[in-house]
Amino acid sequence: MVNKVCVLGAGYMGGAITFPLSDNGIGVNLWGTWLDDDLISGSIGGFHPRLKKPLNKNVKFFYSSCLKDAISGVDTFFIAVTSEGFPGVFELLVDNLDFSKNYCFFKLTKGLVKYQGKIVRASEAAESIYKKHLKNLSGNIKGASEKNRIYKPAGFAMTSIGGPVRAVDLASRIPTVSVYGSNTKAAFDKIKYFTTDYYRIHRSSDPAGVEICSTFKNIYSIAAGLCDGIYGRNFKGSYYNIIALLFNQSVLEMLKIVEAAGGKKETAISFAGIGDLHVTSAAGRNRKYGELVGSGDDPAEAYCKMQREGEYGEGYVALKLSIPWLDKFGLDIEKELPLLSTLYRIIYKKNDIKKALNRLILKMGN
Amino acid sequence: MVNKVCVLGAGYMGGAITFPLSDNGIGVNLWGTWLDDDLISGSIGGFHPRLKKPLNKNVKFFYSSCLKDAISGVDTFFIAVTSEGFPGVFELLVDNLDFSKNYCFFKLTKGLVKYQGKIVRASEAAESIYKKHLKNLSGNIKGASEKNRIYKPAGFAMTSIGGPVRAVDLASRIPTVSVYGSNTKAAFDKIKYFTTDYYRIHRSSDPAGVEICSTFKNIYSIAAGLCDGIYGRNFKGSYYNIIALLFNQSVLEMLKIVEAAGGKKETAISFAGIGDLHVTSAAGRNRKYGELVGSGDDPAEAYCKMQREGEYGEGYVALKLSIPWLDKFGLDIEKELPLLSTLYRIIYKKNDIKKALNRLILKMGN
Repeated sequence: MVNKVCVLGAGYMGGAITFPLSDNGIGVNLWGTWLDDDLISGSIGGFHPRLKKPLNKNVKFFYSSCLKDAISGVDTFFIAVTSEGFPGVFELLVDNLDFSKNYCFFKLTKGLVKYQGKIVRASEAAESIYKKHLKNLSGNIKGASEKNRIYKPAGFAMTSIGGPVRAVDLASRIPTVSVYGSNTKAAFDKIKYFTTDYYRIHRSSDPAGVEICSTFKNIYSIAAGLCDGIYGRNFKGSYYNIIALLFNQSVLEMLKIVEAAGGKKETAISFAGIGDLHVTSAAGRNRKYGELVGSGDDPAEAYCKMQREGEYGEGYVALKLSIPWLDKFGLDIEKELPLLSTLYRIIYKKNDIKKALNRLILKMGN
Repeated sequence: MVNKVCVLGAGYMGGAITFPLSDNGIGVNLWGTWLDDDLISGSIGGFHPRLKKPLNKNVKFFYSSCLKDAISGVDTFFIAVTSEGFPGVFELLVDNLDFSKNYCFFKLTKGLVKYQGKIVRASEAAESIYKKHLKNLSGNIKGASEKNRIYKPAGFAMTSIGGPVRAVDLASRIPTVSVYGSNTKAAFDKIKYFTTDYYRIHRSSDPAGVEICSTFKNIYSIAAGLCDGIYGRNFKGSYYNIIALLFNQSVLEMLKIVEAAGGKKETAISFAGIGDLHVTSAAGRNRKYGELVGSGDDPAEAYCKMQREGEYGEGYVALKLSIPWLDKFGLDIEKELPLLSTLYRIIYKKNDIKKALNRLILKMGN
């Protein structure tokens, strides 16, 4: 049984995941980071200010300063902070864990992170942090026999969550299938307690693939937004061809990336890939970010503008990190990932958007 | 060089393909079927009444009764009639051809057709018609030596056109990539005369795969419309999760269908599959058909209603034909194509839409 969980991060997705969990009778401690204090104070009345939905009574709210209280007696965590905040929050979390217990981590955070000067997947950063902590603990109790050590040196395992799950839709209890990628029986055993009639969970044995997809769908969904920005005003209702084409090209490139970076192609073809890209391109924050840029906003300024309004354009950050990260896997970005490199040139090199997209499309047929 | 082509069918797609062709300086004879006479009379002023766009001056218009004039001196045909009209129009065309020449057929018509009591792909029906005609010719000139026969018994070849090409968008000259599936050098040699900066052509050596995709994307795009119908009113802006999920499931099922029916999986993953499904689900007539049904219209009545307004819901017809057609390929429709069978039960067995979709989604995760 799962009686209690802690959700770290009180934004859109952190708020939304409380719906199926608390509908199932699980007590949910919703902890906000130092950036979420307003969201927590807003939610205390029982109404999430971003989702604009009433929260269940078995959801409790914790300010950033009350992490210890939020995690007390909890062994199951959903982490829904931004990718930029992820390493810091995870360090804070493990610093406060009692390592005599086994924990299950479910990661809703998407994206690549910078950790100790390297660009890695968020779950890789988490593993380093976790192991470093174990090592420190081990150091502190030198001499204790392996058997008597207070921590359990069990393998680190973090479930990566993906799939076509837009927070607002989930909070509206619209039928949704999420993908949980894990290699751990302990994690899969808990899944049955999270599902409801409207929140179904599809199990994947490819956590890396799920995580890579969730990073790149944020990047590629900027493309749909760019089209909305450049064509929306003058061609309303008649520029679906290019949106569909770029969507398809995104899928083709995601397949290559997932395979090259150690995930499975099937993961990108299934709900964590195509499905999540679809929902994000149709209605996500990264699409919105693209639209701002397509409408003429400076790429860096558009990102800041959204952040000031509490909307986080993950794709902007992930795009920058993705180029050096992909370098490791021997992909020729210019040739094999022409849409990704086009997006990079638009966002970080300020190439003219229409010209850059037209150049790409000229190459896609002849 | 291609100086002149004849486009058969003056509806949306027949009208739209005249844009890149005539922009390239090709003279286009636009012939309307007996159902298109109003469209032809409307277009004669130079403005296509469906597309609501001005047509180029080098497009000429031909009523259904003037087929001979329309095809005079032409060896390149674009066929853009409905799937229901296809066999009849193709018979009429070959009856009027002079078989001392070589012809290239480019087929924009999607879908399965009924021909001589069998359900076959449109290009298979065309091949039977063509070969029957050759045989008749051969019969008429019995005794003529093989060498002196007036017809050329060259292999029949029809290019299947697919890809994310919505007619209105193409007529707005929005950047578009179309897929031409063929195994014939003669067809590929002509392609370069059709392309423009905004109309790019991607060559595929899998005409069957392109044709199968173009059939099934029409069927599956009904799903997005059903969701618009059942959720649009009460959940405006918050039911993207289920749309994306069903889109992804459609892709997974199209992959299975294309492979089982003799096409290549890659075709379904590329522009003829995912891309075309995307544009049709977002804004095609089959999506609109689904929305009518999702809003409570009787499935058969909704089809007729659209037809009265000159809009042809191909997917409705293709769905019915697809079930017996798929039977041939040893797929277990209930188990392997659960969305297709759900759509069939909704449209042809009047199952409750919400319940049927929920039942499907319950099975997609656990």
